[in-house]
Amino acid sequence: MTAYSDLMAFQRQTEALSAIAGRLGWDQETMMPRGSAGQRAEEMAAIEAVLHARRTDPKIGDWLGSADPASEIEAANLRLIRRRYERTLKVPARLASEIASVTSRAQGIWADARANEDVAAFLPILTEVIALRQEEAQALAAGGNLYDALLDDYEPGTSSAAIADLFDRMRPRLVALRDRIFGASHQPARLEGKFADKIQTEMATKLALSFGYDMSIGRIDRAVHPFSSGSGQDVRITTRVNESDPFNCFYSTIHEVGHAAYEQGIDDQHILTPVGCGVSMGVHESQSRIYENQLGRGRAFTGWLHGQMQEAFGNLNITDADAFYAAVNRCSPSYIRTEADEVQYNLHVMLRFDLERAIIAGDLKPTDLEAAWNDRFEADFGLAVDKPSNGVLQDVHWSVGLFGYFPTYSLGNVYAGCLFEALKSDVPDWEDGLHDGDASAATNWLRTNVQKHGGLYEPVDVITKASGQSPSEEPLLDYLEAKFESIYRL
Amino acid sequence: MTAYSDLMAFQRQTEALSAIAGRLGWDQETMMPRGSAGQRAEEMAAIEAVLHARRTDPKIGDWLGSADPASEIEAANLRLIRRRYERTLKVPARLASEIASVTSRAQGIWADARANEDVAAFLPILTEVIALRQEEAQALAAGGNLYDALLDDYEPGTSSAAIADLFDRMRPRLVALRDRIFGASHQPARLEGKFADKIQTEMATKLALSFGYDMSIGRIDRAVHPFSSGSGQDVRITTRVNESDPFNCFYSTIHEVGHAAYEQGIDDQHILTPVGCGVSMGVHESQSRIYENQLGRGRAFTGWLHGQMQEAFGNLNITDADAFYAAVNRCSPSYIRTEADEVQYNLHVMLRFDLERAIIAGDLKPTDLEAAWNDRFEADFGLAVDKPSNGVLQDVHWSVGLFGYFPTYSLGNVYAGCLFEALKSDVPDWEDGLHDGDASAATNWLRTNVQKHGGLYEPVDVITKASGQSPSEEPLLDYLEAKFESIYRL
Repeated sequence: MTAYSDLMAFQRQTEALSAIAGRLGWDQETMMPRGSAGQRAEEMAAIEAVLHARRTDPKIGDWLGSADPASEIEAANLRLIRRRYERTLKVPARLASEIASVTSRAQGIWADARANEDVAAFLPILTEVIALRQEEAQALAAGGNLYDALLDDYEPGTSSAAIADLFDRMRPRLVALRDRIFGASHQPARLEGKFADKIQTEMATKLALSFGYDMSIGRIDRAVHPFSSGSGQDVRITTRVNESDPFNCFYSTIHEVGHAAYEQGIDDQHILTPVGCGVSMGVHESQSRIYENQLGRGRAFTGWLHGQMQEAFGNLNITDADAFYAAVNRCSPSYIRTEADEVQYNLHVMLRFDLERAIIAGDLKPTDLEAAWNDRFEADFGLAVDKPSNGVLQDVHWSVGLFGYFPTYSLGNVYAGCLFEALKSDVPDWEDGLHDGDASAATNWLRTNVQKHGGLYEPVDVITKASGQSPSEEPLLDYLEAKFESIYRL
Repeated sequence: MTAYSDLMAFQRQTEALSAIAGRLGWDQETMMPRGSAGQRAEEMAAIEAVLHARRTDPKIGDWLGSADPASEIEAANLRLIRRRYERTLKVPARLASEIASVTSRAQGIWADARANEDVAAFLPILTEVIALRQEEAQALAAGGNLYDALLDDYEPGTSSAAIADLFDRMRPRLVALRDRIFGASHQPARLEGKFADKIQTEMATKLALSFGYDMSIGRIDRAVHPFSSGSGQDVRITTRVNESDPFNCFYSTIHEVGHAAYEQGIDDQHILTPVGCGVSMGVHESQSRIYENQLGRGRAFTGWLHGQMQEAFGNLNITDADAFYAAVNRCSPSYIRTEADEVQYNLHVMLRFDLERAIIAGDLKPTDLEAAWNDRFEADFGLAVDKPSNGVLQDVHWSVGLFGYFPTYSLGNVYAGCLFEALKSDVPDWEDGLHDGDASAATNWLRTNVQKHGGLYEPVDVITKASGQSPSEEPLLDYLEAKFESIYRL
């Protein structure tokens, strides 16, 4: 046995245990009886303790010291193991466990606070969460930028300065486009009516299959917040149904299928190794967003969906496929990020990015957060926030300590823009099948050029290799302007 | 910290990890996509390796050496930990892992062999399984009886000699009763028709609630073979539906609710401790069988069920509630243990008990097993086995190495007989609620006298305390004779 193979044997077990912990998370959101939370918390703590002990095992350091990679894949696995090991060692076990325990409590408190529109009830635990994450960032940053240290968990290889520059370039064109859209004399119709749960559910499965979701190693269940969970041979997604808004179900399903297809599409040889899962949140989001938006909300696919929905639900009171396409892509002022249209979505992310950088830097106090949010929201969106659930309490992220995560959503959109441009050039007939609800020309290209690599390359390298150029916001913004100028007849 | 509290902190984590492994098993039978088996096997192996390392951790020996129990509960936990620790240490890790791996393979080979009616295809791996379990029994028995060493895993405190004596006493009365039943001029009607899946499923949930299954810490799903899984605050059951035989669904549901109610009924203070789960397979089966048979197949409850079924399914072509009661309890010659009536069920167990004792002793070779089974079956049941799936291949047990398990089914019946006698004497109005589908008078008594204790007492002591006398077959046989003499007008 070599040091590499010893290390990988140990690592495979860790990956397998981590997959189990992930599946417990899935179970908790989909299957767990409501009275089981107390015992479940103890079960989760037990497996997390096992994982933490393995991830800080000094044997890893010894193996890393003498392992000699014999291939690109081995080098990538070693790189990923080393990064994780060094990161884990920097954070004292006491702090890691405190973060786990406080954020687990905080999520419930946030949910109650949101339900009761009571920011004050959330502030004490949020203050704790922030202090703990700041402490962690200090341990990780070794004198460097605290926010960057956190960001690195979700998108290795980028920095808050680079993202700030990117956002500065994106904002003016997005705002200009949004203003033209809102000022347009032509406004798309809105889909209205009641759409039976059962039919939506059946159609969600059909959509998932259209986009290549492999149900032999996946399944679709209900959850309050849709998500994708797992890697390799067991990747499950969830959806939700609102009978007055079928697009919510359909597009969140396609979005999660994008995430799931990425995990399912990684080369089988990487199963239960560090390379065997998506390389970063940004690249992950590039898959979910290109499936959802460039493909799923495109003219070709919506044409097919229009026919499917007429068949399933009868008359939709939408004049034709063009009007349906416009309805799917309708832009309107709204408070909620997850419901935002493609044009405004990134503006939501920018707001959070600026606020959370200020929080982590200590420049914005938790007690001032709600006011800062509301001021900024009104400045950016022209809407006064009417209640905390439409404002600072809308997202779960900060309650669970996810500072540094939000910008990866916009990076994903930017990456999706680059990939879409390359796809169109590499696969001239990419759109043909979509007219018949078959996305395979596009999804096969994405599988070959992005998904199958898993964590083999650094995030920015994956996108660069696939799109043939360094990531840039230009393709996304060009795409958005062309699409919405056409829809809104600008 | 005392040695006891240190030990228990360690043990709680082990119990929590073991609960996770159990829930993965549930997932595998109910939710797992069919293509996920390969990865899942590696996940299961990883958590089993973690569990094995914890269960053989020398720290346990140190703690056991110095822990001083301060209460009956602490003494019971120490007793259970010591028993498990000593057992685990006796079996070499190599052997334990080989058993896990071979039995996991063998289960699939058995399922295929059964589907193809091909005993020969099963024999090689069965021979391996037997050899491994014999080796394990030798390690455990230290010169004593090999079969008893295996039996001890499932029913501590009994012996094959005691069980053989018990069965010798039971057999003549069971056979005599069976012969009188089959010779009776009055034979009950049989329920016939098609019973919609959806209605059966809804009724199964209603039945589960009738018998006190707590859905806030449980759930009901489908599986090929019904089972109950989990302890404490998360105890899930499964059921199956055959549209031409609703009693299959209903009574397997009530049976599994008996198992689940036991686990749910254990005092909350014992959650995630060794005392916090059912004490033995025999006591477990006493709960499932008393729920299913003495309560569920009794005259009072079947009267209510008759009305419910008429309401749900319309005319059943059964003249009245007495005829329905007789139909539920109809006895007929049959090959399959799990479908056997109350009278013949134990005769099935006796056949397996004798064969598996001979196998483990080395007196019966795997190659002779099918012939031995068929000869014995015809002698005991007067039926020639027509195909292996109706004979030696019908049960999964031997493929997964469960030698010594079968007799606990009959012990469960014997215990249920004792408990039922005590219940009737302690709770004179036990039957009143059952006329209205409410089993709580009986299930509350069982909870208080059996279930809440979990593993606090040895199996035979649980039954003795609850029933006020040492376990004996007399109450069961008296009950069976009275019940079937009445039904068959003997």
